[in-house]
Amino acid sequence: MADLLSGILDLSRATPVPLHVQIIDQIKRAVLAGKLPAKLRLPSSRAMAAGLAVSRNTVMAALDQLKAEGFLESLPGSGMRVAPLPEPDLLRAKPAKAAARQHRLAPHWRLPLAEFQPSALAHPQPFAPGIPDLNAFPHEQWSTALRRAARLADTPSAGYDHMSGHPRFRQALCKHLAEARGVVAEAEQIIVTSSARGGLSLLTSALLSPGEECWVEEPGFRSAKAIFSAHGGRLVPVPVDAQGIDPSRAPASGKPRLIYTTPSHQYPTGAVMTLARRLELLDAASRAGAYIVEDDYDSEFQYRGRPIAALQGLDRSGCVLYLGTFSKSLLPAIRVGFVVVPAGLADGFRKVHRHTAQFVPPVIQLALADFLERGHYAAHVRRMKSIYSDRLSAFCEGIARHSGGALAAAMPDGGLQTVVTSRDGMADAALAAHLAKADMQGQPLGDFHMVPKAAVHRGMLMGFAAWGEAEAAKAMARLARLYR
Amino acid sequence: MADLLSGILDLSRATPVPLHVQIIDQIKRAVLAGKLPAKLRLPSSRAMAAGLAVSRNTVMAALDQLKAEGFLESLPGSGMRVAPLPEPDLLRAKPAKAAARQHRLAPHWRLPLAEFQPSALAHPQPFAPGIPDLNAFPHEQWSTALRRAARLADTPSAGYDHMSGHPRFRQALCKHLAEARGVVAEAEQIIVTSSARGGLSLLTSALLSPGEECWVEEPGFRSAKAIFSAHGGRLVPVPVDAQGIDPSRAPASGKPRLIYTTPSHQYPTGAVMTLARRLELLDAASRAGAYIVEDDYDSEFQYRGRPIAALQGLDRSGCVLYLGTFSKSLLPAIRVGFVVVPAGLADGFRKVHRHTAQFVPPVIQLALADFLERGHYAAHVRRMKSIYSDRLSAFCEGIARHSGGALAAAMPDGGLQTVVTSRDGMADAALAAHLAKADMQGQPLGDFHMVPKAAVHRGMLMGFAAWGEAEAAKAMARLARLYR
Repeated sequence: MADLLSGILDLSRATPVPLHVQIIDQIKRAVLAGKLPAKLRLPSSRAMAAGLAVSRNTVMAALDQLKAEGFLESLPGSGMRVAPLPEPDLLRAKPAKAAARQHRLAPHWRLPLAEFQPSALAHPQPFAPGIPDLNAFPHEQWSTALRRAARLADTPSAGYDHMSGHPRFRQALCKHLAEARGVVAEAEQIIVTSSARGGLSLLTSALLSPGEECWVEEPGFRSAKAIFSAHGGRLVPVPVDAQGIDPSRAPASGKPRLIYTTPSHQYPTGAVMTLARRLELLDAASRAGAYIVEDDYDSEFQYRGRPIAALQGLDRSGCVLYLGTFSKSLLPAIRVGFVVVPAGLADGFRKVHRHTAQFVPPVIQLALADFLERGHYAAHVRRMKSIYSDRLSAFCEGIARHSGGALAAAMPDGGLQTVVTSRDGMADAALAAHLAKADMQGQPLGDFHMVPKAAVHRGMLMGFAAWGEAEAAKAMARLARLYR
Repeated sequence: MADLLSGILDLSRATPVPLHVQIIDQIKRAVLAGKLPAKLRLPSSRAMAAGLAVSRNTVMAALDQLKAEGFLESLPGSGMRVAPLPEPDLLRAKPAKAAARQHRLAPHWRLPLAEFQPSALAHPQPFAPGIPDLNAFPHEQWSTALRRAARLADTPSAGYDHMSGHPRFRQALCKHLAEARGVVAEAEQIIVTSSARGGLSLLTSALLSPGEECWVEEPGFRSAKAIFSAHGGRLVPVPVDAQGIDPSRAPASGKPRLIYTTPSHQYPTGAVMTLARRLELLDAASRAGAYIVEDDYDSEFQYRGRPIAALQGLDRSGCVLYLGTFSKSLLPAIRVGFVVVPAGLADGFRKVHRHTAQFVPPVIQLALADFLERGHYAAHVRRMKSIYSDRLSAFCEGIARHSGGALAAAMPDGGLQTVVTSRDGMADAALAAHLAKADMQGQPLGDFHMVPKAAVHRGMLMGFAAWGEAEAAKAMARLARLYR
């Protein structure tokens, strides 16, 4: 035994890998490397067990498995030998090639991954944009809702039914969207996806062919550009002004298939699209035969007056797809978004969704239905709206005061972020680098622009919602030191 | 009031839509339809409230919202009037167009949705294939694990961290895959997706360019063909024999980018790929620079001997992507799958996954980690293996006996389904129609074939795992009546 398998078997008790698995792995590797030649007779299991100081059962379990997988074969009588491997040439040829293998993603990901990567939202510093308060989430209530939902997850929804949304959740969501957002739709038009990004990816796959035109807001949300571009869409930046995206400034020759817009709070400028502009945009889409993608990512948080109803509710030609998410109003970790599609697309979308597979576990959907039905969701949003409104005021005041008036933050009507500019006209990237010295984070506005690449942009997008009083005060103190 | 708004406002107390929302909707619709002309003065809120028999607060809430959205404007002094809408021509032109709008999905979905739709697994009859037992799931244990996980879902994982998999779950899964499946990988190589189909969709998007060749098993899994085809892949059917897919029978000129295979139990034939064939396939992939997609969908359930280790563990050139799922071993409603990618692709896949967005909520991942770590998962699989093994024997025996020997079911080594044939050589579709008379479901084998389309296939794939003794006995009694 010592002679035959030494240099081949080297068991470790320090790893969590079971001993029989180590024996299997090491013998396999030796056979494949030609170190144990075909027809070589192995020592008896008793001898191996003694040599390795393991139980005979361990050795026999390993040998049985190696036999089942074709590495060993039984000898007439008793004992095992190495099985003849099919084409040893193949095996010997491999290691050299292994090193040479060049992994590459499909080329359609080159541009989106280089240009439009989402900002790093892991371990965010104050005041990174796009993040709600993670501590204020009602974990206990949610845990109770989950437990209740786990009991409700009965046989029909345990299988492959309702992959695109549990009926009870779609019903509760439909009612909520009608009341809170003026969305006009039946529950069957809702496709539930793991995040709004999942909905965006689904609808792009379902509707866009390579080479087709996609109008995107300039400046605008990077992930939408990434997803359209990865599907071969031709991005056409359309300028945004104080009224929102302006279709009259799109190329006259344009024939868009998709028009992406954030009418409730334009991302990143915060502009709220006026009624006139909404009607103009619907008309432009209707005439072009395009679909409007309305991304309503954080409309729940409107601090002055009520939220403006969704563009979708004004649509009479069935051209709007409405994207929503619970990432901002509850928690990103909920991983629930949805897309409301025109009735004529619902069946096709359900079929496509079976393949693109941004599914949400029924237990999460049922817990969320519970939250909506019992009013926990509305209560949480109400509570956070009041907290965020205070944080917005404190942020705007603090930015001005602690920078000695050198910086100014715009006061938007809603949302979780705002634009900070330097009164001396510092360019966005310089401003970002400057504030990083105070461990403050933000996204330079230039990141949201496509054209002209070389232009100087002023201002950064900063989030005020995720940080409580103490954390915000510490960051502001660092800012004060920076500007002293 | 009665004069001005009759025919426009018609409130219903029978719907769940709040009254103020009904008022908003109906006035909007009237303004957009030109039924309430610009500058028309509305009755006072008091008069409207009286006329509609609702509270004045309800009316005022509606009017405020309509003003905020730009439909109404305040009059000097008091009162409201209809705001002048921007371009009434646009509005008038629309309704006619609305009816004419033709919704269509992108053409790349035409073939996959027509040819390779997944079989209807909603409301399955005995003995539809592909479904585990939905009643045997340890709901109480899972509910406890979820509750515990909800408490653990702390701040870092509440945000946008770890979108491609919670570290604790990836670690537990990695250990499990090494021990149970012989998968050789670090936790970082695992991308967690909402079902194996999500993993398949992700990897296809990440790796395949339109026009590239995809080898698929003939016969083989329809969803893989659908996903490759929707991404523009050129499907090349490669014959399957008793040893699995046979690369030597692929077109000699072939240059595949992806090779899809189910080596543990070929779907649908049940063939287990031999070691020789595994090495051949790895060699073919290595020489072609192709990636092998190993779909290990139900390998946990091996009834004779131990499961054969994954093909991935034999790969020394980094060409295998390993797909797994908890849909079969636990429950489809878990909605958790994963793909283990070569180390050189892990970072790229995480980036692409941010956009394709088949995310799994952290709370589900943590509960599943708990299940793996505490041995609940292994115990459930052990228990189900014994139950399924009994059901397989009973199924094979029952099919033969109750058909009076007219039908025969193959006895596979593992999995949740087997092939049933009629001894008189009945074609698959006729057999399916025949068995449907006994309310028995199955999938004709022809559905899994691409070529030749016109050939007669014999046999249907039927599942034995999902139905308990009582339900199976009832179905068998119906079969007996059919063959009496």
